[in-house]
Amino acid sequence: MTLMPVTDSMFLALETREHPMHVGGLQLFTPPPGAGPEYLRTLRQDLLDTSSARDVFRLRPATPLSTRGYLSWVADADLDLHYHFRHSALPRPGRVRELLELTSRWHSTPLDRHRPLWEIHLVEGLADGRFALYSKIHHSLMDGVSALRQLQGVLTDDPDARDCPAPWGTRRSRPQPARDAAPFDPRRLVRLGRTAVTELAGMAPLAARVATEAFREQRLTLPMRAPKTMFNVPVGGARRFAAQSWQHDRLGTVASAAGVSRNDVLLAMCSAALRTYLLDRQALPNTPLVAMVPVSLRRRASPGESSGNRIGALLCDLGTHLADPAARLAVIRRSMAEGKRLFHDLTPTQALLLSALNVAPFAASPVPGFVTHTRPAFNIVISTVPGPRRRLYWNGAGLDGIYPASVLLDGLALNITTTTSGDTLDVGITGCRRSVPHLQRLLTYLEDGLTELERAVSAG
Amino acid sequence: MTLMPVTDSMFLALETREHPMHVGGLQLFTPPPGAGPEYLRTLRQDLLDTSSARDVFRLRPATPLSTRGYLSWVADADLDLHYHFRHSALPRPGRVRELLELTSRWHSTPLDRHRPLWEIHLVEGLADGRFALYSKIHHSLMDGVSALRQLQGVLTDDPDARDCPAPWGTRRSRPQPARDAAPFDPRRLVRLGRTAVTELAGMAPLAARVATEAFREQRLTLPMRAPKTMFNVPVGGARRFAAQSWQHDRLGTVASAAGVSRNDVLLAMCSAALRTYLLDRQALPNTPLVAMVPVSLRRRASPGESSGNRIGALLCDLGTHLADPAARLAVIRRSMAEGKRLFHDLTPTQALLLSALNVAPFAASPVPGFVTHTRPAFNIVISTVPGPRRRLYWNGAGLDGIYPASVLLDGLALNITTTTSGDTLDVGITGCRRSVPHLQRLLTYLEDGLTELERAVSAG
Repeated sequence: MTLMPVTDSMFLALETREHPMHVGGLQLFTPPPGAGPEYLRTLRQDLLDTSSARDVFRLRPATPLSTRGYLSWVADADLDLHYHFRHSALPRPGRVRELLELTSRWHSTPLDRHRPLWEIHLVEGLADGRFALYSKIHHSLMDGVSALRQLQGVLTDDPDARDCPAPWGTRRSRPQPARDAAPFDPRRLVRLGRTAVTELAGMAPLAARVATEAFREQRLTLPMRAPKTMFNVPVGGARRFAAQSWQHDRLGTVASAAGVSRNDVLLAMCSAALRTYLLDRQALPNTPLVAMVPVSLRRRASPGESSGNRIGALLCDLGTHLADPAARLAVIRRSMAEGKRLFHDLTPTQALLLSALNVAPFAASPVPGFVTHTRPAFNIVISTVPGPRRRLYWNGAGLDGIYPASVLLDGLALNITTTTSGDTLDVGITGCRRSVPHLQRLLTYLEDGLTELERAVSAG
Repeated sequence: MTLMPVTDSMFLALETREHPMHVGGLQLFTPPPGAGPEYLRTLRQDLLDTSSARDVFRLRPATPLSTRGYLSWVADADLDLHYHFRHSALPRPGRVRELLELTSRWHSTPLDRHRPLWEIHLVEGLADGRFALYSKIHHSLMDGVSALRQLQGVLTDDPDARDCPAPWGTRRSRPQPARDAAPFDPRRLVRLGRTAVTELAGMAPLAARVATEAFREQRLTLPMRAPKTMFNVPVGGARRFAAQSWQHDRLGTVASAAGVSRNDVLLAMCSAALRTYLLDRQALPNTPLVAMVPVSLRRRASPGESSGNRIGALLCDLGTHLADPAARLAVIRRSMAEGKRLFHDLTPTQALLLSALNVAPFAASPVPGFVTHTRPAFNIVISTVPGPRRRLYWNGAGLDGIYPASVLLDGLALNITTTTSGDTLDVGITGCRRSVPHLQRLLTYLEDGLTELERAVSAG
C-alpha cells in the first residue's frame, strides 16, 4: 500500500459520471507486410501471454479501513489483462468516421475503480486494412504527456524489430519519470500555482509585485476578458472525439512565408475553425476568443532547481472577431510573442505564479452556478505535446498517427490537443457531446483555415 | 416535469459505479432472406429517420433547484437517437463467445444520467451471418420483465411484415402497463414487503402470526440458513455475461418422466452446474445452496384487489450437497412444492409479507461489512420470465433467442434469468467479473446437468 499524494487523489475526488478524469490516445497503425486475417488476434494473444505490466498499470485506489475516500494506492494482486486489453471491431463500412464514433463512446465512460485505472482497445475492421489502439488511463496515474510518452516509449524506429513491449510494458530505452510535472490540465496548473503562492508568501511581496507589474505594463491578454461562448458551459458525461493529420510541411511553408512559428499557424487554423463553427451556429461573440496555450518554460536552471521542463499557461487572443485570415494570424503572433517574452523575463516561480493567476478561476468550477454566471478565464485549451519526428513501428506495424483525447471540465466543453508522428501534425479534438454538436465539422474547418492561410501568404 | 416516486428514485440513489442498476437483454436474429452487406446499416438508418420514441424512452432524471438528489423525471427536449441506438461490431472470428464478451463490457458501464436512461446496440460481425441487439435500460424506468415485454412487443409472428417499430417504439398491439409490479429484483420485493408490513401493522397481529406459523409448521427452506459461498460477497463494477438456449422438449421429457415441472428441471440443471462449478474450485459447502425463485402469485382476486400478477419470493433448497442427480431433483421438487402450497394458502398480502421476510436481509446490504459478516438469506436468484412460445420476427428477421442480463447486488454476485423464445428456453447468466471467474463454464455444466438428468430418468 502506498499513501496517495493529494495531487493524485484530487483527480479521483473530482471525478463524477459527468466528469471522467482519464486521458486518452488513439493510435493508427499500418500492419506489417504479409499480415494475415489472424494478425491482430495473434498479436493480442501473444501480448496477453508474454507481457508484464509496469507497476503503474497495477495500481488501483483503495480505501483503508481507518479513513474515508481514496487515499492510498494498492497493487492489484491478480491483474486481469483480459479485462484491460480488449479486442474490438468497427462496423461497416469501417471508415475513420466509425473509428471516431467508437472512440467517442469509449472516452465517455469512467474507469472502474475496483481495478487498475486503464483500458486499451485493439481495434480491427478499418476498410483500408489498418488497425488502431485506443488507450485510456486515469489522470491520477498519468497526465496526458506522460501517457503519450508511455505509448511512444514501446515503439521503435526499426521496422524489422518484433520484440516491442505491450503498451503497458516497460520501455527498452532508458526509463523516464512517468509522472513528472504536467502540462495541459488547468487544474494541475492551479495546484502548481497554489504551491507557488505559498512559496511566494514566505519570500517577499516583491515577487508577487513583479507578476502584477508584468500584467500591467505589457499588453497581455488578461484572464476574465474572454467572452462567454457556447463552449463555456457545464459539461455532460458523453464525449465526441474527432482526429485528423496534417503535413508539417504545409504549416511550415505558411510559417516561413509569414515570419511566424508553426504553432502560430496551428493556432490560426484553430481560430479559423472556431470562427466558422460559431458563425454557422450564429454564436460568434463580438470580442475575440481566448485560448489557454500551455508553453514550455525550459530555461537555464538556477542552482537547486530541477532542470526539467516547467510548463506555463499562456493566454492567446485568437482574433476570431476578424474576417481576414492574415489579420488573425498577426494578432495571434503578437499575443503569443508578448506572452512568451513576459514568461521569459520571469523566474520559474514567478512564471508558475502567473500561470496560476491565468487559470485560477477554474479552481472554482465545481461550485454550482459558477460556470453559468461568471465570465470564463479563457474559452478553450489548445495544447501541443511534442512527439517523434521520425517514423516509428510497433512490432513491424507503422505508426500513422497518434491523436490525444483530453479531459473536459465544467466551463471547458472543447479541447484541442495536438502532437506529431513522423511528418504529420496529429490533431485530437475532444468535446462534450451535448454542448458541441457536429464536432467533426471542425476538422473540415481546420483544413479550410489552413488553405485560406496558404492563399493569404502566397498572395501577400 | 413529473415528480419521481421513491420506488424509481431508489434505484438511482442505490446506483454506484460498482452497482449499475440497469437491466439488459441480448436478442439474436437471423436476417431475412436476401439481406445484403448493407442490411444492418440501412435498417439502423431507417429506424433513426422514421421512428418515434415512447415517453418512457425520453425521460431523464432531473434535480429541481429546490431539492437535492434525483426527485423528478423530465422529458429530454432533443432526444439524441444516434447516441442511444448504436452500431457495433464483433472482432474476428465473430463467434457467440465474442458477442458475450462485448455484452459483458456493455453491461458493466453505468448509464449517463444526463440523458434518457437507455442504450441499444445493433451488433454485426457474427460469422454465421446473424445479428444481435443488446438493450440496456435503467431499473428506475423499467424492471426486467417490462423491459423484455417492451423488446418483444415490437415483434410480430408475421415473417413478411416490414413495419415493426424500433425497440424504443410503441407496440402495435394493445399497450400493456410498462411499469407494473416486478419480479426478480430482491430490493423491489423488500420494498413491497415494507408496504405489506405497514398494512399488517394496521390490521392485526393475527396476519403476521399466520406467516410466522406457516414458517414454523411447514418444512420450509428458511432464510438465513443458506451457507456462505463465493457468490455471496461484495461485487465490483465489471460483469461477465453468458447465454445459451436449450430445447424445451428436452426439459419436458425429463419433467414428464420424473413427474416434476419443467421449472424443477431447470432448477436441477442449475443445481448441477453450481455443484460442478464449486467442486472445481474446491468451494462447495457441506450444506445445500438456497436459491431465491420469484413465483407468480396469480389467484382469484379479492374484491378491491387488482387482478394482475403478484410476485412472491420462494426459497428453494437446491440439494447441491447430494451427488445423485435424481436425489437433487427430488429435493428441489419437494422444496418448490411446499413453498408453493404455503403461498397458495396465504392471502396475497400475507404472501407478500412472507416474500419480504425471505429477502429482508438484503435491505441491509449497503451497510458496510454486512455482506461480509452475516450469513446470506440465499445464494443466488434464479428466475424465469414468461416469453413467447411461437417464432417471432422483427422486420423479417427471425428471433433466435432472447437472453436477460440482470442487476447484481452486494452479496449476490451471480444471477440466472431465463425466458423463452419459440421452442427454446433461453438462459442468461450475469456474474461479477472478479468474484465469478470462468462464468461461461456454467453453460457447459448446465448442459452436463441436463444430460445427467436425461440419463437418470431413462435409467429409472
